[in-house]
Amino acid sequence: MQNFEYYNRTKIIFGKGTETRLGKETALYAKRILLHHSGGHAVKSGLLDTVKASLKDASVEWVELSGVKPNPRLSKVYEGVDICKKEKLEFVLALGGGSVIDSSKAIAIGALYDGDVWDFYDRKKTARQALPVGAVLTIPAAGSESSISSVITDERGPWKQSVNEECIRPVFSILNPEVTYSLPLYQTACGVADMLAHIMERYFTREPHVELTDELCEGAMRAIIRNARKIAAGGERNYDARAEIMWAGSIAHNNLLSTGRVGDWASHAIEHELSALFDIAHGAGLAIIFPAWIRYNIKVDTPRFARFAARVWGVDGAFYDYEQAALEGVFRLKNFFRSIGLPVSFAEGNIDPARIPEMARRTVRFGAVGNYRQLNAEDVEAIYRIAAET
Amino acid sequence: MQNFEYYNRTKIIFGKGTETRLGKETALYAKRILLHHSGGHAVKSGLLDTVKASLKDASVEWVELSGVKPNPRLSKVYEGVDICKKEKLEFVLALGGGSVIDSSKAIAIGALYDGDVWDFYDRKKTARQALPVGAVLTIPAAGSESSISSVITDERGPWKQSVNEECIRPVFSILNPEVTYSLPLYQTACGVADMLAHIMERYFTREPHVELTDELCEGAMRAIIRNARKIAAGGERNYDARAEIMWAGSIAHNNLLSTGRVGDWASHAIEHELSALFDIAHGAGLAIIFPAWIRYNIKVDTPRFARFAARVWGVDGAFYDYEQAALEGVFRLKNFFRSIGLPVSFAEGNIDPARIPEMARRTVRFGAVGNYRQLNAEDVEAIYRIAAET
Repeated sequence: MQNFEYYNRTKIIFGKGTETRLGKETALYAKRILLHHSGGHAVKSGLLDTVKASLKDASVEWVELSGVKPNPRLSKVYEGVDICKKEKLEFVLALGGGSVIDSSKAIAIGALYDGDVWDFYDRKKTARQALPVGAVLTIPAAGSESSISSVITDERGPWKQSVNEECIRPVFSILNPEVTYSLPLYQTACGVADMLAHIMERYFTREPHVELTDELCEGAMRAIIRNARKIAAGGERNYDARAEIMWAGSIAHNNLLSTGRVGDWASHAIEHELSALFDIAHGAGLAIIFPAWIRYNIKVDTPRFARFAARVWGVDGAFYDYEQAALEGVFRLKNFFRSIGLPVSFAEGNIDPARIPEMARRTVRFGAVGNYRQLNAEDVEAIYRIAAET
Repeated sequence: MQNFEYYNRTKIIFGKGTETRLGKETALYAKRILLHHSGGHAVKSGLLDTVKASLKDASVEWVELSGVKPNPRLSKVYEGVDICKKEKLEFVLALGGGSVIDSSKAIAIGALYDGDVWDFYDRKKTARQALPVGAVLTIPAAGSESSISSVITDERGPWKQSVNEECIRPVFSILNPEVTYSLPLYQTACGVADMLAHIMERYFTREPHVELTDELCEGAMRAIIRNARKIAAGGERNYDARAEIMWAGSIAHNNLLSTGRVGDWASHAIEHELSALFDIAHGAGLAIIFPAWIRYNIKVDTPRFARFAARVWGVDGAFYDYEQAALEGVFRLKNFFRSIGLPVSFAEGNIDPARIPEMARRTVRFGAVGNYRQLNAEDVEAIYRIAAET
């Protein structure tokens, strides 16, 4: 087990009706805020009205900025930064899923910086301060509601880049599973793939003695899989299933599951090129890439993949033939993704395989990716090819 | 799943050599502190010297108060409170296990209160402020290093009472598993029983839809059991086993595992009378009480106890005869406690059964205990009798 620091200061307020607590929580930090959202679902569902009423009750004033898209764009971040500076706003409130929260985090950094906020995403600067960020989560997926991550796409490239710094961790996040009843099954499934991927990135480690966190990872994955199936099978309004998925999405990415170990994160980097170039949902991209990543690496530490197959997918025979068990695990992982409506190949995701060499070069533009096994452009190309062929 | 708030602001600094970071972390909060410890193990092992050197390097001054005993005493707390007030100390640093940390928390409350600090433990007052507390943990057990709990014994009763408030949660805790190499096997085992009990108190809930946290609880219990066996079987200096146990002790009690559910906590209340009257180690008392509590309640929700048997203890046949499976689970739990050197009956723990009626009355002095099933004096007496007879 490696040395680690574990610290997560986000206050999670979870359950039915909790969005009405928003105003009071926000007022602890600011009286004038940016209210950031996509302008879609939250408006139609009436959630935006509830949020505004709660802010008003707590005498919090807001300036609204909507229009955030999936794979959130830098141009929208620039807009938000300008508003925050001009209006002297003190807080960014995200109402939405990972895209809105990530965009809010970027705005929060930019609001306290004189230069171009992209400097932080382009690894020229390290983010050390930001406006406080809070969130009302509507899509369980990215775990951004209690994470230090923000991923933004500069559409001029397009480049999809991330910042991971403590200063952008939300001070609070409000999670009401009822809000997700109306989330379409495809978006629900994309979120499930994203949270499973967050756990798998941590689970596939070369650190040998991490038994406790292995157990926690495996248990969380099983709970996600079972409850995702319930929702997909007509359980859109099943509160308990929605609640398990929503809480799992936060736990998957709040760093508890990576304590003492080094995560891999190659699949995320490899996927980012898919969503940057083809604007596919991140979760769908991960459903295509992750099984290919496992197949490419299956000989690196076959017993670990066999254990994944046995403990997460109930594969028997794990102790007779590790490789066979491991392959059966990948098969079941893909089957699961497909069963909840996700693409698992380039063809199913409408990804053009002609751009594989370009995507591989782009993936490694800052150097090799991954920790489980360091991957260069050739390796990444091979993984794209597996994903394209199957 | 019930609504919940999850917030844990303790910064955990975990791993080899991390005690050398103490000075810098403390200096973020204070320049003059109370250094509180037992005067035993930490002195002999040289840890106290390391701690002092680190404080000195960071220009932090300290006043030392040693002599904390297991089942920490109110009289020692009074001493600490007086010193803090007289010397105008700004921070309480605990160097030790749960007893020292609990004592430190009590001192931290008392230092900012004009009356008798026992008022908070006697439920006359609610603690809303305290000096910041930090910890260097030496005994993985109570989880006090990142919890809101403090349990103190007023030796005049004797009464063992607790405070559970956010203001006493440590701001940081330093956990170096190497420090626990020299922890005697019996004390290690008591700690293991304590952390298992913390999870079982949460696991045995009547809340039906808590699948994710069920999985996390079960996984954590399995990891604790396996690694406790490794240590008991000659692995005293096995870093990884010690590390798993140490981190598990924190996770067992940092409230993640109780999100969305209501814990029981009757066994803790029932045990407290054992350690208050007979000064037995809390963990040893729990090893005696918890199996008896399960046996007494086995018909309340037999499938849950059968699941505990199946998932935590590998009992097969859980789905043929729930009660049989559940009883086999209790049998294995007791066998496990015994195998790591703990008493599992009154006789083995030198507890006098003549005092059972008195202990039962004392247990319910504030009313019925437990949430899984509310227990009155008669129930508690029956549980003591089961523990006495087996």
